[in-house]
Amino acid sequence: MSLLVSGWLALDEIKTPAGAVEGSLGGSATFAVLAASLFTDVRLLAVIGDDFPEHELRKLEGRRIDMEGVVTADGETSRWGASYHADMNERDTLYTVLGVNESWEPRLPSGWKDSRTAFMAAGHPTVQRDVLGMLDDPRSTVIDTIKLFIDNDRDELRKTMRVADYIAFNEGEARELTGMVSVAAAAATLLEQGVRSAIIKLGEYGAMLKSPTDHFVAAGYPLDEVIDPTGAGDAFAGGFSGYLDAAETIDDATVRRAMIYASAVASFTVEGFGPSRLLEVTREELDARYREFRDLTHFEVDDRG
Amino acid sequence: MSLLVSGWLALDEIKTPAGAVEGSLGGSATFAVLAASLFTDVRLLAVIGDDFPEHELRKLEGRRIDMEGVVTADGETSRWGASYHADMNERDTLYTVLGVNESWEPRLPSGWKDSRTAFMAAGHPTVQRDVLGMLDDPRSTVIDTIKLFIDNDRDELRKTMRVADYIAFNEGEARELTGMVSVAAAAATLLEQGVRSAIIKLGEYGAMLKSPTDHFVAAGYPLDEVIDPTGAGDAFAGGFSGYLDAAETIDDATVRRAMIYASAVASFTVEGFGPSRLLEVTREELDARYREFRDLTHFEVDDRG
Repeated sequence: MSLLVSGWLALDEIKTPAGAVEGSLGGSATFAVLAASLFTDVRLLAVIGDDFPEHELRKLEGRRIDMEGVVTADGETSRWGASYHADMNERDTLYTVLGVNESWEPRLPSGWKDSRTAFMAAGHPTVQRDVLGMLDDPRSTVIDTIKLFIDNDRDELRKTMRVADYIAFNEGEARELTGMVSVAAAAATLLEQGVRSAIIKLGEYGAMLKSPTDHFVAAGYPLDEVIDPTGAGDAFAGGFSGYLDAAETIDDATVRRAMIYASAVASFTVEGFGPSRLLEVTREELDARYREFRDLTHFEVDDRG
Repeated sequence: MSLLVSGWLALDEIKTPAGAVEGSLGGSATFAVLAASLFTDVRLLAVIGDDFPEHELRKLEGRRIDMEGVVTADGETSRWGASYHADMNERDTLYTVLGVNESWEPRLPSGWKDSRTAFMAAGHPTVQRDVLGMLDDPRSTVIDTIKLFIDNDRDELRKTMRVADYIAFNEGEARELTGMVSVAAAAATLLEQGVRSAIIKLGEYGAMLKSPTDHFVAAGYPLDEVIDPTGAGDAFAGGFSGYLDAAETIDDATVRRAMIYASAVASFTVEGFGPSRLLEVTREELDARYREFRDLTHFEVDDRG
């Protein structure tokens, strides 16, 4: 088993009511590989600029992450800045610097074609599709995106959405792509548009999955405090993909468990700035939070119900 | 068994992206008694003005609702007008006319002191506490409120919050009363402030319950279309109270089932304008939706989780 993760490594500037960081290890791929590596062996395919600080990159070392696919290109590393509002459900993106990701042409290290699972974290949809096309016969493929690509590259994104087994988009993105106000209707519309399975991430309120054979709703984990929501969605999708990769077989019950593990890893992510909490969380903590999800949400079938 | 419900009967003017109604049967008590009467015998304590249209009131007839406590006073019936935004999670209150509720002094019909359960739907907190004080020894008491009373009568509301067994407030109200951004932290803070059990209603995203012995999170029902969110919170709390009243014994598992039945009845409420859908829903439909909640949210304990 092994999971290929492709996406951005970036340097983030983040302001939340709880504080601020700058030049911090970030980008969709960072959160995804850290989450996924709690479940399985991960292969990271990404590009950084020659300005990427060595000590930030070293944070990814000593884990189940194969860094052979991380190449350094001449130029500037991708950068992202955001400022969160008081209630943390809204943020202003201050800037997105594409940097070396603007012209990246990914090449797969030899031996990576056999990846059992692939997660294309937010990145250009054409690049996502190119990378998926390099794989022999992946069992499961998952893609994420961000508003930038919905706005600028919607046609390419729609093509990529149809070749993946799962899309993992957030509520606002699903609404924008379908014009539907209701999350359930948006998910159903995505399936009508040719998406195989749609995961809609609801931030603090949980997540929903709609597939041809299943409809699942996961409640949000009731966190006492959110320090920084950055990367929670990437960690969710990375954790989901990692859990699927590690699973012997995949049926609807497996996918539901993957959704809960994904929620669990996302809930840890927001407990610290950037990837700081994700860098220290253990599989044991994750398993405990999974059980806690069960305790928090379980209810009995009623005599009549 | 019997559930006393006290609150407002009003005439509503509602505008949503799906349409508009005016002079429609509404008010917190309307939604609460219709929801509750699906589970148990309900006693309605409320005041209307001499302008209340007979045909609107007749909509409550022929159900498990004892109308002996509905008195007609000289003056104007309470009125409420609201306009919902495109995503239905936000609304502008156009006006609130207190009318005869401004000076209502409720009197309990003889024989109603023995009510096993009481739900004080949104109304003046002093009136809520007065009515609760008229009962002999209710097994469970539940109160709701609205922003109007948080803003204008906060001290009285805080007193009433401490005498009820459950408060059922929405997310924004819980935040405003505690100053906490996190819903979980708001619920915990309410308990520290002397509330016995706090139910936080999350609208389309479900609900949470925090008590000294339990913490439960209910996911939202994935509706394809919301026609009118008005009264969903009242129906939730009315359904919750009705289910508790009908239960032989009450333990944490009972309360969790009540939360899911409350979610189910609230999900029907928003499928029509005002109480129109609630007026026609059957117990069989409700039981089926309860089972659907179970199917939508169930997941197995993992080997490791």
